[in-house]
Amino acid sequence: MDELIKKIDENLDKFLPQEYPDKLFKSMRYTVLLEGKRLRPILCLEFCRIFGGKIENAMPSACAIEMLHAQTLIHDDLPCMDNDDYRRGKLSNHKVFGEAVATLAGDALLTYAPQVILRNSTNLSPKVKLAILDDFFRFGGARGVIAGQVIDIESEGNISNHTEQNLKFIHKHKTGDLFRLAVRTGARIANADKISFEKADEFAKNFGLAFQIADDILDVTSDFAEMGKTLGKDEKESKLTYVSLYDLDNAKCKLLSILEKCDIMIDEFNSTILENILKDIRKRVNL
Amino acid sequence: MDELIKKIDENLDKFLPQEYPDKLFKSMRYTVLLEGKRLRPILCLEFCRIFGGKIENAMPSACAIEMLHAQTLIHDDLPCMDNDDYRRGKLSNHKVFGEAVATLAGDALLTYAPQVILRNSTNLSPKVKLAILDDFFRFGGARGVIAGQVIDIESEGNISNHTEQNLKFIHKHKTGDLFRLAVRTGARIANADKISFEKADEFAKNFGLAFQIADDILDVTSDFAEMGKTLGKDEKESKLTYVSLYDLDNAKCKLLSILEKCDIMIDEFNSTILENILKDIRKRVNL
Repeated sequence: MDELIKKIDENLDKFLPQEYPDKLFKSMRYTVLLEGKRLRPILCLEFCRIFGGKIENAMPSACAIEMLHAQTLIHDDLPCMDNDDYRRGKLSNHKVFGEAVATLAGDALLTYAPQVILRNSTNLSPKVKLAILDDFFRFGGARGVIAGQVIDIESEGNISNHTEQNLKFIHKHKTGDLFRLAVRTGARIANADKISFEKADEFAKNFGLAFQIADDILDVTSDFAEMGKTLGKDEKESKLTYVSLYDLDNAKCKLLSILEKCDIMIDEFNSTILENILKDIRKRVNL
Repeated sequence: MDELIKKIDENLDKFLPQEYPDKLFKSMRYTVLLEGKRLRPILCLEFCRIFGGKIENAMPSACAIEMLHAQTLIHDDLPCMDNDDYRRGKLSNHKVFGEAVATLAGDALLTYAPQVILRNSTNLSPKVKLAILDDFFRFGGARGVIAGQVIDIESEGNISNHTEQNLKFIHKHKTGDLFRLAVRTGARIANADKISFEKADEFAKNFGLAFQIADDILDVTSDFAEMGKTLGKDEKESKLTYVSLYDLDNAKCKLLSILEKCDIMIDEFNSTILENILKDIRKRVNL
């Protein structure tokens, strides 16, 4: 796993070199290259491998998805959004580069990332490239992660919006969609058949949900050293989360049942990496 | 021309229907559908026609470029950037929908626009689609319009950055790149040969420069009713413009000479629409 993360980090650095204007590229590189678990690119590469593809062929897309993820972090942390000063244990982008450059660096990543796919995926057919890009725009856009973020913001501090329906929508889109994008992209690059593709997508949906419930729990039970970002904010800003809508015990029960579902699904994928990722979630949440 | 604008407006409305979340799509539609001159989509459609293509085939791309343009306007107007309360005579996006939603609406347009190209350009080959998208990301991204915006911001109020080199860079990218994208896209869709394509691109570079010098002049000489946005701001915020680096008379001379260059170039394009656009610039600047 550590070796894979190292490989991804090297490729992120390679695909996003320092260019002019200095400050713009420094700001883009700052958040993209922050130390991270690289879950999304790992899932992309691993599902490519699971279905018999070469992971080198998936590397540009895996890195592009991490860049898209970094974009959402930069804009989410802005004062007008979640107003977070820290991310992955370091100052957030706008605290280092200012709000204007942070906003533009996010915009730049949104157009840079798909170009990384376009220009570096030399072994993919135009048809596969177009399908990957269509998913990229769908899950990374107004019908995907951004839709989730809007409903998340609208629910903040507004208890009348704290419904199960909104919670599901936020988790499905804000967290789940980038995991789906990662898994589907890996499967596409390996030319997975339709049934395998659907199974992988179904796993991604459940995994995304598990990941977000764990995140909601950790916001209450963890500390800065562990998470690298300001915690306890969900409650303070009366955010709509699994813990706020139900309670901590119920959230843990729900998480346990989804993790068990994930366990069953990955049996047929035969993947130590997926097993380790699920184990890690259990360990962090103390399940 | 009015008929063409009407057609573009109808297609913008069709390609960007109201969806859920309501506020997000309302915000996206608000700026995209503001009454405007639609210069970029018109140039895209007109260069498609000039080189023998069907303008229907270029309509999705033309609308996508207008959406990209709207994205730059929404983010440029944000308080952390140019802090403009008005755009095209109406309140700017964040004054109506708030900063958070305006930021997200801009992000959403950046992913929605290329999807409009992908999903609606049924008559284009995958190869042409990929070439158009590559241009879209290049001119709309960190090496294009965003690079120009960053240097523009860095020059604001900082006289030591007021150099001819920076001025050229800002105009080339911040204004010129979207015109180049529009013209090149139209030419690509018509399958223009290489020499014609280069000529069109060269015209776009010069046209972009003329447009921006005119804009710099009008910031000094025009009024709100004419321009629909706050004027006199360039001087107040000591922005780097043609007028600030040289002076009003020199800026007018420079504009005149570039417009004459444009006149010569469009002779062989045989286009009343291009003639009218140039005439309109002359009229507004009193040349």
